[in-house]
Amino acid sequence: MTSIITTRSDFYAEVQQFYARQMQTLDSGKLEAYADTFTEDGEFRHTPGREPARTRAGIIRDLYAVHQRFADDPQQRRHLFTMMNLDLQVDGSIRSTVYALVITTRPGGKPELVRSCVVHDVLVREDGGLRNRSRMVEHDGLD
Amino acid sequence: MTSIITTRSDFYAEVQQFYARQMQTLDSGKLEAYADTFTEDGEFRHTPGREPARTRAGIIRDLYAVHQRFADDPQQRRHLFTMMNLDLQVDGSIRSTVYALVITTRPGGKPELVRSCVVHDVLVREDGGLRNRSRMVEHDGLD
Amino acid sequence: MTSIITTRSDFYAEVQQFYARQMQTLDSGKLEAYADTFTEDGEFRHTPGREPARTRAGIIRDLYAVHQRFADDPQQRRHLFTMMNLDLQVDGSIRSTVYALVITTRPGGKPELVRSCVVHDVLVREDGGLRNRSRMVEHDGLD
Repeated sequence: MTSIITTRSDFYAEVQQFYARQMQTLDSGKLEAYADTFTEDGEFRHTPGREPARTRAGIIRDLYAVHQRFADDPQQRRHLFTMMNLDLQVDGSIRSTVYALVITTRPGGKPELVRSCVVHDVLVREDGGLRNRSRMVEHDGLD
Repeated sequence: MTSIITTRSDFYAEVQQFYARQMQTLDSGKLEAYADTFTEDGEFRHTPGREPARTRAGIIRDLYAVHQRFADDPQQRRHLFTMMNLDLQVDGSIRSTVYALVITTRPGGKPELVRSCVVHDVLVREDGGLRNRSRMVEHDGLD
Repeated sequence: MTSIITTRSDFYAEVQQFYARQMQTLDSGKLEAYADTFTEDGEFRHTPGREPARTRAGIIRDLYAVHQRFADDPQQRRHLFTMMNLDLQVDGSIRSTVYALVITTRPGGKPELVRSCVVHDVLVREDGGLRNRSRMVEHDGLD
């Protein structure tokens, strides 16, 4: 069973499933549950030029600060990860380079393409599942 | 072989392949073939607030009614499913929660993002393949 | 191990990984490395009505000609492949029919949906990996 886990197809599907649940969690506004997809000492840099959030507690604080901005502008945001490029590292961690689209829909409106990103993750195995040790997001179109 | 089928990676790829063929079939206008991806007693609720279509015959009728609307407005619609979140149920069925984008392109025009949805499926195994026992589509941006 | 490679889930993940790396390579402007994802006698028809590029050398020449057009209009293009529909052929090649979105972001701008396509690939195994023997791209919205 252990050897099967290390074949490409197994961990590829596992990471896709991990991302689907992780980002559906975030898009549902479950910020604590999203932070829990990071390791305790995890690092999350979602905005270039901004200091990364560190530790789960720090990530939660940061997420609340970001979501505050949407308080007066209700909208459903969706994060779509595609084109997932994985590299299994010798220490068992997985480097993932994946495209992300952010799409938002306001009440009564059409969906809008808000942002095109490249996400750079380091994923590790913990408690039988995957967690982000780090996530660094690059935004397309920055000058 | 049977045991391999029950690993996550196997059914994850199988559902992705199922969705690709299913929605390419719909986007090609093969409405009967799309209805055939549902079980005989399948249920399809594509529009919130509208009564679900029931049984394959009912689904075909409903699809023809919907496609009628595009008769005077030729366009190529594409349904893109991403971020597929699967739960294998104890009865062997699969609950799938997946993001869907509807993109349309009119002759000579640019593609437009028409709708952002969350699709809730129950998939069952029949005749060696998968079929939808039910599909319920939520639309983002409804008031 | 050889037999595992032939299960759907294994080659499905393998093709997804191949596409992710292939198109991230192209989007990074590494034109020679992209051409190297084709077989030596590979054929690439990216624009309907235009003669396909043939052989790796021909593909590189064609890519440079196309990228020339963007010289005065800097932008980050992204190719997103989704809804991958695979057919394993008896000769071991894989026919892939996959949706592609082209998204572009100019400095300081929002991402724009440039094109919706259907990509028809024939993939073959070479040197232990996959390569395109051919790629034919259909564009939605052509009159």
